[in-house]
Amino acid sequence: MSQQMKRSLISECTPHETVVLKGWVKKIRHLGNISFLLLRDRTGVMQCVLEKEWAGYKVEVESVVQVIGKVIATDKTELGVEVLVEDVQLLNSAEQVPFEVNKKKLQVGLDQMLNSRTLSLRHERVQAIFTIKSMLAHAFSEYLLQNDFTRIFTPKIVSQGAEGGANVFQLHYFEKEAYLAQSPQFYKQMMVAGGLERVFEVAPVYRAEHHNSSRHLNEYISLDVELAFIEDFYEVMQLETDVIRYMFEKVQQYCVKELQLLQIDIPVITKIPKLTVTEAQDILQKEYRKESPIGDLDSEGEKLLGKYVKETYNSDFVFITHYPKETRPMYTMPNQENPSVTDSFDLLYKGLEITSGAQRIHNYTMLVRSFEEKGLNVENFQSYIDTFRYGCPPHGGFAIGLERLVYKFLNLSNVREASAFPRDCTRLVP
Amino acid sequence: MSQQMKRSLISECTPHETVVLKGWVKKIRHLGNISFLLLRDRTGVMQCVLEKEWAGYKVEVESVVQVIGKVIATDKTELGVEVLVEDVQLLNSAEQVPFEVNKKKLQVGLDQMLNSRTLSLRHERVQAIFTIKSMLAHAFSEYLLQNDFTRIFTPKIVSQGAEGGANVFQLHYFEKEAYLAQSPQFYKQMMVAGGLERVFEVAPVYRAEHHNSSRHLNEYISLDVELAFIEDFYEVMQLETDVIRYMFEKVQQYCVKELQLLQIDIPVITKIPKLTVTEAQDILQKEYRKESPIGDLDSEGEKLLGKYVKETYNSDFVFITHYPKETRPMYTMPNQENPSVTDSFDLLYKGLEITSGAQRIHNYTMLVRSFEEKGLNVENFQSYIDTFRYGCPPHGGFAIGLERLVYKFLNLSNVREASAFPRDCTRLVP
Repeated sequence: MSQQMKRSLISECTPHETVVLKGWVKKIRHLGNISFLLLRDRTGVMQCVLEKEWAGYKVEVESVVQVIGKVIATDKTELGVEVLVEDVQLLNSAEQVPFEVNKKKLQVGLDQMLNSRTLSLRHERVQAIFTIKSMLAHAFSEYLLQNDFTRIFTPKIVSQGAEGGANVFQLHYFEKEAYLAQSPQFYKQMMVAGGLERVFEVAPVYRAEHHNSSRHLNEYISLDVELAFIEDFYEVMQLETDVIRYMFEKVQQYCVKELQLLQIDIPVITKIPKLTVTEAQDILQKEYRKESPIGDLDSEGEKLLGKYVKETYNSDFVFITHYPKETRPMYTMPNQENPSVTDSFDLLYKGLEITSGAQRIHNYTMLVRSFEEKGLNVENFQSYIDTFRYGCPPHGGFAIGLERLVYKFLNLSNVREASAFPRDCTRLVP
Repeated sequence: MSQQMKRSLISECTPHETVVLKGWVKKIRHLGNISFLLLRDRTGVMQCVLEKEWAGYKVEVESVVQVIGKVIATDKTELGVEVLVEDVQLLNSAEQVPFEVNKKKLQVGLDQMLNSRTLSLRHERVQAIFTIKSMLAHAFSEYLLQNDFTRIFTPKIVSQGAEGGANVFQLHYFEKEAYLAQSPQFYKQMMVAGGLERVFEVAPVYRAEHHNSSRHLNEYISLDVELAFIEDFYEVMQLETDVIRYMFEKVQQYCVKELQLLQIDIPVITKIPKLTVTEAQDILQKEYRKESPIGDLDSEGEKLLGKYVKETYNSDFVFITHYPKETRPMYTMPNQENPSVTDSFDLLYKGLEITSGAQRIHNYTMLVRSFEEKGLNVENFQSYIDTFRYGCPPHGGFAIGLERLVYKFLNLSNVREASAFPRDCTRLVP
């Protein structure tokens, strides 16, 4: 019978039909002559009623089963239906699980959650994180493709780091030394200058930083954007605002169940306030007597500023602009009126930096000088630098750290929860 | 004036309007009192007519300029319009280019094409490759999302290779030894078993192979799919057929200009023929007196079979199925009737393998035995193996090599042309 019948999804069951359901045993309860098996598939949970010869059916929780039965209407379940079981078949048995995965809240520590990913993912709230992450990444790509951007793929094995050498993972590449890319920065600029004009990439980047905080990952997904023929870096910030708005709207539209589960209200993003880094530092000083590092904000400063911006502008986001030259990479465009600062920005979200962006230098001579000022040997970056000898248009871009975005979006307690298999200083497994 | 006016794209110019165009100088010709500047942006090429004070305007080819002028109808250009120039502004000058980028066909060797990517990308036929690659990747994702798959992101820094150790790049990960992932195989299975049921990933994979052929890359983009609750591996092949059909249709629909440029006709994919590896070997023997390695095809055999399938079935594609156990990874499901072969397949496209796929083993005991039979130490794969102790559904999947697909789809002469910045045994720059 089951061979001829197609599997039905739990969310699609309607009364009176006979269905084949497949999924995991969430729970089983025995009450004398009747048993209740809660079956979970990717779309929901179905109460399956076992009577007569099926009453008392023995099965370990989290086993995989196939249930054949008749859907009947009921007011006793959330779905408004339950299934009267005609046949149960064990597809794959489970051993006793090491922790309870079917409580309302998953009560395990972070380490166990990550060590037992297959099991922690079974929890619908944990699964919801990755459904939403998938949608955010897709919406990012979709918006940009609709706006004439080309999706690019650039190498992660590189001969030079994009930031000038620090914090890179080294590897043996045949007879050569190579590194894992910290960012696709050089490559996206080269493809913009190659005539594609507008490009984006969704790919991992690598930072060999020894940080072991709740907001750092050593491998993460960078949502990278670069576009040519901009008038100024305000255009880049406007694009990022529009992209994020679109991403949030898509999640709002397609992840209703997941947002409910995680109790997330998505704010409407209209305009994101902007503060220069000097203004931001002054606010921190005046409001919280908080001193900042020269030309920058530290993580405590970011947090306080997030609070301030929420209270003052009712915004989860704030752009911090015009960072001094010393704190930004060598390819960052200096400000025309005040060349000691740059046309650069960070985007803070709920008090955490999730983006760096800027207009980039497109003039060959200016770029070479900027490399030299940073003490970098231009010869090591020849193929990148040569790009600027053959007609590079004015351009800029930004990158969003996807896991940080998800972490803050869903109010998680650690960025690692936004990565299925996070990599940090000590974690390499699973 | 230009500050107030928005840039127009060349493809959008209509007669009578005054426009600001920005792009690259494709060509400039001087004919006495008149000059013609061909301006190229991402959407096309515009003939700009320079008269009076602008006649004889000097500019190096591939420089970036802004042109302001009036669009007028003409029957002398393909677009049906040209621009009567009122103002030209040099945005960034180019040096003399080392090779001609504006010929109908780009006449440079592969090495120079790759070394000077910024310049070779300026050629519209080269650029078209990457526009189509972008669309193929997007269509792949879109189809799967529409069919209830979740996009996943799995680590590329791993503690073990997915194929059991050979051909991996090694790196220093803090105090540990680590590797670059050869495939997301283990991780996609873990997320399927975690309850997501249907997942896909678009991400780089790494093979430390010493091959230096026209069809190998050491870093490439893998379009990975894995899905649960399949009846058999024919379902996996059907899904791949449907995905590829959708990808081709999307390119057909959105990349009209690019397909014309590259003179590509897309065949309608209906059904893809299937041959067992034994049948394929017999055909090679009978038709071409070609001997094959035990239980497998070599690259010459693949080519001949591509020819045979085209002639016999008028198909660019063929599935080769039922590879013997010895030639497939340890997680491959043995065939129920003949356990010496597996429920596995390759997909050949125009005589080149672009996919491996299979049903996977979902039973814990069977999997452990399979690892042991291959001489692998189960302890080294503990977190993967543990997945199968807690209710893993029947599942299977496949992976498409994106650059190989593009290479064959566009009849390129080398897979490297399908990668903006390819990595091979000797190439690490740019």
